[in-house]
Amino acid sequence: MHAASFSAAEPLTEFSQLSMAEGIFGTPLSDRTACFDLFFRSIPDDGGFLISAGLARAVDALRNLHFDDDALAFLRETQTFSEDFLHYLATMRFTCDVWAVPEGTPVFPYEPIVTVRGPLLQAQLIETLLLVIFNHQTLIATKANRIVRAAEGRPVYEFGARRAHGADAALWGARAAFIGGCAGTTQTNAAKKFGIPYFTTMTHSWVQAFESEAAAFAAYAARCPNDCVLLVDTYSTISSGVPNAIRVFNEVLKPMGVRPKGIRIDSGDITYLTKKARRLLDDAGYPDCAITVSNSLDEAVIREMLAQGARADSFGVGERLITAASSPVLSGVYKLAALEDETGRAVPKIKISDNTGKITLPGVKTVWRLLDRELGKAMADVVTLADEEINETAPYELFDPVYTWKRKRVEHFIARRLQQPVFVGGECVYASPTLPEIQRSCAAQINTLWEEVTRFEKPHHYYVDLSKNLWDLRQSMLQPYSNTEE
Amino acid sequence: MHAASFSAAEPLTEFSQLSMAEGIFGTPLSDRTACFDLFFRSIPDDGGFLISAGLARAVDALRNLHFDDDALAFLRETQTFSEDFLHYLATMRFTCDVWAVPEGTPVFPYEPIVTVRGPLLQAQLIETLLLVIFNHQTLIATKANRIVRAAEGRPVYEFGARRAHGADAALWGARAAFIGGCAGTTQTNAAKKFGIPYFTTMTHSWVQAFESEAAAFAAYAARCPNDCVLLVDTYSTISSGVPNAIRVFNEVLKPMGVRPKGIRIDSGDITYLTKKARRLLDDAGYPDCAITVSNSLDEAVIREMLAQGARADSFGVGERLITAASSPVLSGVYKLAALEDETGRAVPKIKISDNTGKITLPGVKTVWRLLDRELGKAMADVVTLADEEINETAPYELFDPVYTWKRKRVEHFIARRLQQPVFVGGECVYASPTLPEIQRSCAAQINTLWEEVTRFEKPHHYYVDLSKNLWDLRQSMLQPYSNTEE
Repeated sequence: MHAASFSAAEPLTEFSQLSMAEGIFGTPLSDRTACFDLFFRSIPDDGGFLISAGLARAVDALRNLHFDDDALAFLRETQTFSEDFLHYLATMRFTCDVWAVPEGTPVFPYEPIVTVRGPLLQAQLIETLLLVIFNHQTLIATKANRIVRAAEGRPVYEFGARRAHGADAALWGARAAFIGGCAGTTQTNAAKKFGIPYFTTMTHSWVQAFESEAAAFAAYAARCPNDCVLLVDTYSTISSGVPNAIRVFNEVLKPMGVRPKGIRIDSGDITYLTKKARRLLDDAGYPDCAITVSNSLDEAVIREMLAQGARADSFGVGERLITAASSPVLSGVYKLAALEDETGRAVPKIKISDNTGKITLPGVKTVWRLLDRELGKAMADVVTLADEEINETAPYELFDPVYTWKRKRVEHFIARRLQQPVFVGGECVYASPTLPEIQRSCAAQINTLWEEVTRFEKPHHYYVDLSKNLWDLRQSMLQPYSNTEE
Repeated sequence: MHAASFSAAEPLTEFSQLSMAEGIFGTPLSDRTACFDLFFRSIPDDGGFLISAGLARAVDALRNLHFDDDALAFLRETQTFSEDFLHYLATMRFTCDVWAVPEGTPVFPYEPIVTVRGPLLQAQLIETLLLVIFNHQTLIATKANRIVRAAEGRPVYEFGARRAHGADAALWGARAAFIGGCAGTTQTNAAKKFGIPYFTTMTHSWVQAFESEAAAFAAYAARCPNDCVLLVDTYSTISSGVPNAIRVFNEVLKPMGVRPKGIRIDSGDITYLTKKARRLLDDAGYPDCAITVSNSLDEAVIREMLAQGARADSFGVGERLITAASSPVLSGVYKLAALEDETGRAVPKIKISDNTGKITLPGVKTVWRLLDRELGKAMADVVTLADEEINETAPYELFDPVYTWKRKRVEHFIARRLQQPVFVGGECVYASPTLPEIQRSCAAQINTLWEEVTRFEKPHHYYVDLSKNLWDLRQSMLQPYSNTEE
């Protein structure tokens, strides 16, 4: 509908990135080629996979990366940065290479979602900028997708603006929710900016503003006959709301020859109320009048409602979607994986940590998805060094990076690189698909996952294996630290 | 440091607000004076109170309320709005009266935090705009305050940018966290925009960029001798990080005559590691070298660590603060409380709902805090009709609005109105205190709460009572709906 024109806001940085930049500025380290990976460490809600989102905004932020006069004036005021360094920031041009997994792709912990290669000073400067975008949007796309799958084909609308963590979370959360499969949003701004289909609802204040519920319904139906969804729970759903709705359908819409679109229930025991409302609507000759429900829904509530036979035709999901309430933190990190030495060689780097889950994968890497050639199903992902190739014509031995005796020989597969080039030497080379294309691609790719991976309870742990070369490299780098006293 | 200049972004609206506006536009309802209250329904984390935040941004948003050409063009494209209505939006001037509780005030469920009175069309248009601001910022201020209180006087720094729900949540979350008592932030942008003290940290990538941890520490100490906090957990805290830090303190800082500022531990068993690190630092002659800790902290973790004798001097708190992870949804709503009828009388309005917790308080109201005249302690809040006065010179009878037989007669109190005028006829009349003033006022007001209210586990339910007049009004309006079949 509208081309997405993103705002060129000031880059989000933390002082540590600027201090480090200042610290290496003017030293040989500054221009050495570094390689950073952005990856997630876990899956919210103990789910089986994540849905990547955030690339479109990240591309925009990197294209517009600059420090304006205001920002420089503030940094000068702190009296911790040299004039030379501030001049560098003022004239800095982004020159890194960036690869990334497209939005809407199912992804897994520890695989590189974004890889940045370029001068150390620049590559480390964008850490927080990238993390806040990918952590937020991937979190919401993943959550929305869970809710959409729970609804089993019934449309899910994003209703969360009022409970989002600020206007930005509302706006970009609506986009991420659409990627995850939502059918639309109630937000004007998101509809305008991203062309997301919008959904308009009646509010309780509309009902309250009139002398009676029936008068409120009649006035609404008269003004919006073709988009008439009446909110029936302001006073009492069954004894007042639904009967008044039916009266207005009969008295206002029927004479216009218009069928009512639906009713919405936003409180009470929704499963019970939908059954009772369904019967009243059917008996009154409105079996085609849809029932939309809302009120603190999420995938767990929706699954339970449907299991109990709720007669809901669509769902409005607000606060628990837009905040990913049951698991609101996504653990993406951005870690140094390699750094050029004085001879020009890319030296792999590792972060060890006392928590084994925080140990990083060293070296310049990429990630592959192996798909069964016949069934089209995803068999495993493999993280390899960037210069490795996976030969589709020969059998490939997968092995678990922790329990290395667990091995599996696969053949007849397609090996698909998940990352695509996004920036080359600071120039954007990526043409993002449209938002509906991203949504469709997401749904299609989820279909390549086995049900064992997509189920809600204790999903199968999808294989993200390391190539033999990468595993050997990491092992060799862990060796010197194997004798810890802690 | 910098005056807060907020951006005049497009107002966040949902289609329901615009549909309702269009629905009443040109009818007598449009200009009838309506009164809406913004209030919270519950306290996150089962806490005893909330810390209000969001007013500064809301004031800015309301001062700049307008629909620009882009927004109008989009609304026109939807083909659901008349040209007359779009013209009205294009030229609309905000003319409402607004009262609000100042930022940093401890507040409780069901009391009106913001009251808006003005033409129905306008007053209902700003529902989502206000809610997203107050819900987010109050949530974070409340969470930050819990964490700050758990730290028992040790500084807490806001580290959360990378896990916030977007850049806006990072930025405004940092401000809310400062209101709640945080000592500073790592975000450049928040420091610049709001003058919040900033905290710079060393990163793991700095340590990894050098040939050895010792070389990384030495380079950092040489460049930032006066602000030298070394991150000691990249490889192994006790066997490598702390010994290397001590070596650099001795070899780099001592010759410069500079005492080291601190070390930071970001992984592992932090309680254990702080004790061990403390001993090593003390033995090396650095008892004044502070230990900062981070890594998925929140109030529960900090309390447990301190109970076990952790030797932490300050805390960096990230993802669990900036997302309010343990309770990430604040339930603020914006409800119609009164509407002028055709005779000019303000008719109280109520929303009943099948969930008793969703029943609203009718009428134009205000909220008072009764403070013990001698001890200065808060005794109760009372919601009254706006034209009522509470006489401080006479005894006042409080009674529980649900268990009405629970009564308490209080005297020798000060009755303080919590709301202040913010807009009169659309003109802003409110001069916000500075951010440090808000932070101090918050701390001082928490001191007026009894410990029973501020404790973490099962706090005392602070009294928010209704005046007799308000209680009678609500009761009379509930009567017709008392016979529900649901």
